[in-house]
Amino acid sequence: MSAKHLITKSDYRNFLSKFDTFLFDCDGVLWKGTELLPNVQQTLNFIRLKGKSIAFVTNNSLKPREEYQKKFMELGLDVKLDEIFNSSYSAALYLKNVIKFPKEKKIYIIGGEGLEKELNRQGIEYIGGTDPSERRDIKTEDFENLKLDPSVGAVLCGLDLHINYLKYSRALRYLENEKVLFLITNSDSTYPASGGLFPGTGSCSAPLLNSSGRKAIFLGKPNPEMLQAIESKFKFNKSRTCFIGDRIDTDILFAKNSGIKSCLVLTGISKEDVILKNTSNIMPDYYMEMLGNLLNADDI
Amino acid sequence: MSAKHLITKSDYRNFLSKFDTFLFDCDGVLWKGTELLPNVQQTLNFIRLKGKSIAFVTNNSLKPREEYQKKFMELGLDVKLDEIFNSSYSAALYLKNVIKFPKEKKIYIIGGEGLEKELNRQGIEYIGGTDPSERRDIKTEDFENLKLDPSVGAVLCGLDLHINYLKYSRALRYLENEKVLFLITNSDSTYPASGGLFPGTGSCSAPLLNSSGRKAIFLGKPNPEMLQAIESKFKFNKSRTCFIGDRIDTDILFAKNSGIKSCLVLTGISKEDVILKNTSNIMPDYYMEMLGNLLNADDI
Repeated sequence: MSAKHLITKSDYRNFLSKFDTFLFDCDGVLWKGTELLPNVQQTLNFIRLKGKSIAFVTNNSLKPREEYQKKFMELGLDVKLDEIFNSSYSAALYLKNVIKFPKEKKIYIIGGEGLEKELNRQGIEYIGGTDPSERRDIKTEDFENLKLDPSVGAVLCGLDLHINYLKYSRALRYLENEKVLFLITNSDSTYPASGGLFPGTGSCSAPLLNSSGRKAIFLGKPNPEMLQAIESKFKFNKSRTCFIGDRIDTDILFAKNSGIKSCLVLTGISKEDVILKNTSNIMPDYYMEMLGNLLNADDI
Repeated sequence: MSAKHLITKSDYRNFLSKFDTFLFDCDGVLWKGTELLPNVQQTLNFIRLKGKSIAFVTNNSLKPREEYQKKFMELGLDVKLDEIFNSSYSAALYLKNVIKFPKEKKIYIIGGEGLEKELNRQGIEYIGGTDPSERRDIKTEDFENLKLDPSVGAVLCGLDLHINYLKYSRALRYLENEKVLFLITNSDSTYPASGGLFPGTGSCSAPLLNSSGRKAIFLGKPNPEMLQAIESKFKFNKSRTCFIGDRIDTDILFAKNSGIKSCLVLTGISKEDVILKNTSNIMPDYYMEMLGNLLNADDI
């Protein structure tokens, strides 16, 4: 099926009338780096005024949602904390609501403050993470006896800028027990920062997948578990929900995997030729030049 | 083709007569952990007395060869440093002799003293490795500007017990230049230590493969590049060389990949049922219960 190109006022109106909920990717859709894309603020206001629900879905697991919200605010976008779903939050929701992680069990975290805050909010206990005693070199005695907490029921790996051999070793030891669950916040191979690309969560967690020989549950886009997690908190009718993103291989695939409709904007990674030349077997249902074009559906 | 089971005196004699050079895996063939297997010392002496050359081939890249030699000595095995080929040494030989790495270029190392010593011996310059300035957390300014040395012509990754996000990030930045070679000492997913399995070189290097999207040259078993490296230093006639190992998936595969004959011993990982049930498509040319059985070929 080919993607419908939204061009005319009636295209935009039709598109809007089909959905009650819009989920947005952020970078490449709302902004590029530190710059807001044209008319984004007005478009979000317009969609809200039409009575639609909106939420923002990002794989970034490093920052707590409050800091992410600050970024919205600084760009002039007024969003509520409850409208932001990053992959730390979806991991915590998934553990709490979807698999109902037992109260008496703990999580061994590889990751930062963002993950800890979200687990705390859901009342899930954890060890590891930013614990300073884990930020050290492995010692000879660790090779003989890696002290383990028998109440650990899952290993959860996010992006950890303090990753080390001790943490990998301890996580591997927990994962040797098949009953211990294995979750990774997202599979992104790289993490874009101001100076270029850095290793992403999917790369930093690769030693655990490789050494344990186990499969993990990935909680970020394009994995449908992320939508399950969002759904457990943010109620919507899937048949009237559209995901708007800029990447075929994460955003549009995420929508397909999750059974919701999708719309590609051309302000980010994926370009129009992918659609025109039909070079991907993943196609959005709709595409438009930029999010701000939705304002064309306005009467005024 | 099925594997020939060596059982009788004449089997052992025939086997020995076919080869001038024997390459040995160590753990599972010569010893198990810290215990020498039966008659190993006498068997090695016997093979030497028959005028054969011998060498020891291990994927361990962590310890310098001198320390590995100490282990042989402590177990009563008298071996020369030149008979030991670990994957650090093979990496250095590969760079120097096989690909003739340019003198004016440097290597960026992720790994330990073992790698550094071998590169030093071959007169190859390097940065990174055990440099204390690399053993720190990544800082905000690193995200903006990871200082790079323009003379780096290869990234070489071995097992590094001091691995961190800064090293991964810097290696990724070097690897973004397609002209920079990418070598990994071996692909072992785990590293066996006294207390169990720890992440191996193949696991610790996974973030670089994943984030760079590049392929690497692996220098350890089962990759034939290791034999190329050994051959560049230790001359032998491949058609009269046999590899004796205990693992189908590394040792025997290594021999197949390298075009030499192989013999499986049953004192380690792979058991006889793999051969009897023919469950692997990799088969050794010969197999015997233990290395010490070769003494049966003796006249006395």
